[in-house]
Amino acid sequence: MARTLKTQVCIIGSGPSGLLLSQLLANAGIDTVVIDRKDRAHIEGRIRAGVLEQGTVTALEEAGAADRLHREGLPHDGFELAFDGDRHRIDLKALTGKTVTVYGQTEMTKDLFDKRHADGQIFFFDASDVSPRDLTTAKPRVAFTHGGESIIVECDYIAGCDGFHGVSRRAIPADVLRTFERVYPFGWLGILVERPPVSHELIYANHARGFALASMRSATRSRYYVQCDLKDDIADWSDDRFWEELATRLGADAAANLQTGPSFEKSIAPLRSFVAEPMRYGALFLAGDAAHIVPPTGAKGLNLAAADIRILSRALIAHYADGNDHHIDTYSETVLRRVWKVERFSWQLSTLMHQFPENSPFEKRMQRAEFDYLSGSETASRALAENYVGLPLD
Amino acid sequence: MARTLKTQVCIIGSGPSGLLLSQLLANAGIDTVVIDRKDRAHIEGRIRAGVLEQGTVTALEEAGAADRLHREGLPHDGFELAFDGDRHRIDLKALTGKTVTVYGQTEMTKDLFDKRHADGQIFFFDASDVSPRDLTTAKPRVAFTHGGESIIVECDYIAGCDGFHGVSRRAIPADVLRTFERVYPFGWLGILVERPPVSHELIYANHARGFALASMRSATRSRYYVQCDLKDDIADWSDDRFWEELATRLGADAAANLQTGPSFEKSIAPLRSFVAEPMRYGALFLAGDAAHIVPPTGAKGLNLAAADIRILSRALIAHYADGNDHHIDTYSETVLRRVWKVERFSWQLSTLMHQFPENSPFEKRMQRAEFDYLSGSETASRALAENYVGLPLD
Repeated sequence: MARTLKTQVCIIGSGPSGLLLSQLLANAGIDTVVIDRKDRAHIEGRIRAGVLEQGTVTALEEAGAADRLHREGLPHDGFELAFDGDRHRIDLKALTGKTVTVYGQTEMTKDLFDKRHADGQIFFFDASDVSPRDLTTAKPRVAFTHGGESIIVECDYIAGCDGFHGVSRRAIPADVLRTFERVYPFGWLGILVERPPVSHELIYANHARGFALASMRSATRSRYYVQCDLKDDIADWSDDRFWEELATRLGADAAANLQTGPSFEKSIAPLRSFVAEPMRYGALFLAGDAAHIVPPTGAKGLNLAAADIRILSRALIAHYADGNDHHIDTYSETVLRRVWKVERFSWQLSTLMHQFPENSPFEKRMQRAEFDYLSGSETASRALAENYVGLPLD
Repeated sequence: MARTLKTQVCIIGSGPSGLLLSQLLANAGIDTVVIDRKDRAHIEGRIRAGVLEQGTVTALEEAGAADRLHREGLPHDGFELAFDGDRHRIDLKALTGKTVTVYGQTEMTKDLFDKRHADGQIFFFDASDVSPRDLTTAKPRVAFTHGGESIIVECDYIAGCDGFHGVSRRAIPADVLRTFERVYPFGWLGILVERPPVSHELIYANHARGFALASMRSATRSRYYVQCDLKDDIADWSDDRFWEELATRLGADAAANLQTGPSFEKSIAPLRSFVAEPMRYGALFLAGDAAHIVPPTGAKGLNLAAADIRILSRALIAHYADGNDHHIDTYSETVLRRVWKVERFSWQLSTLMHQFPENSPFEKRMQRAEFDYLSGSETASRALAENYVGLPLD
């Protein structure tokens, strides 16, 4: 016999999406249960993005989990694009009146975990055989195994916040689900190093040898990336090789301030664009990476997830507070309209800033012309900036 | 023995580029000879673009050939994009403060011919074996045959305004010339009809069945296009088939006002992006289609040629008036910087508005997302508009 629990919203996944949702719902008096296949230490250990849109900061403020972010986050007024050594600054603040905040996803996750635990949130970590069921019935439920025990959570709604590899998306029948994908013919080799960043702002560089990104986690910890072959073995990338390649791609000017040191994290990640439609099926809502992946250029993944959650939390709150289901009924349509625009931006910035082996000489010149046009046009720079700081929620 | 003539600038090609150049130089007291492989009637008979940027109008004003243009040209404050029936107007005037003018290339060519003839310009029509020579010597010349007679024009400079199929570009040694090309996997089937246009502004439409363009030459003469297969036979496109296809692609809303009638011109044209570098070799300057082709989406071909000529005429006038060769020395670099930006725009608008057989479902969604982003973003619309009305000369 399975143990049965009841809740209003069962949340699958305790990454930033699931945590943010449970907090926003808790603040509105809505009861949730959170289930994850992993444990907190594993989740917090995942190295991810670190540039937050103002809308994401607002979401954390609304959640009541923004205190440390405001103390430790680094506000950035702009960033730089470099192309074969030529540089163009995008002045986010001047162009849009908005800024972004550098604050690691791991830190944001920690803050949300701390607050959820302090508030007494029910978590089931290390759950196995998680299975969202009866999605189109009046009694949706999530079944799973936890510590040898079979558990069933009966609920009104299920939020699939369990990422690209999670079970939620696969619970939507194959004849309903449509997926769209672009796999990029390269990866990002990323390192963390305990050294001050080469510049106080991010630099995205396209060089004949490939893309490079100079980013950071704090004033003393830097995050650097170079475009690499997906078949590359991490063992072939010594720190020395990495630093040499990074300096070349950033250009002599920018690299003049580069402080090298021993890397303490080094990994290769593929780049993918992916969207699943619809994002709602009966009682199941998808949010974040469970429904969509963007290539990391422009740092949209976490921000897009946070925007999904803001829209989803409003829909659920309207349901419970006012019995208004309009936002629930239009969730998939509303959220996908924004998702596709952000996919477009991430794809476009990735297309502009990387070396594609298949590009013809004409296409290479189109990349350069795009950079030159951006450099010479305040309007084009503003269009890039308005995407970078975050498009409106709806 | 060949007859020898002397001039300051020998112009190869009497299309709008060559004519505009000879007029602007004549106004500055610079002597030119114009050579063409065809005759005036043939040149004026070529049906081409009909949307002029403000800069092109300015060039015609500077040439003193804008009187009829000002009487008969139709100022357009905007145009429309349609995507699967949804429409988005680009308000050029509100977004940029500028407008465009609908006036056929054939009319512009007539006006320039009239003025050149009235001013006593020396033309050699129906010239054969045209050959620019000795380009890197102190005595450049153009040899050709005219009415059975061998003629040599000795000159200081040679302007290659003889289009994509002309001899000028091929006079640049193969080890110096670099070319860049993109051939599109479809053509435009265009018709002229003596009926008022479906809308007072242009409509560019992307529909699942392909691109369509509703354009015009005057208040009573319309120019319509549909994307077609390059292998299509014009005989397979009856007027009835054309009108049905056009109406479907424009969408019921727009097509409600469509007035059909017998077409009096019907042809299929391929779409191509092409750039040759450099645009100067010794005494030879390339301008217009001799150096670059854009796909017709956005109507940049003629405008780009006119911009080349404005830059070239200034360079030549500075040489003769002040002995200042700076603009001659930097012509290729200056003009190509702008050319590539305009190539980028034409390529991008073509990529947005056509159906590409090779597009993946993801890429189709990217097109739609681009349209949705444009529809929702004034900044993105302004970026499109600033390209459409014409980028600054330098």
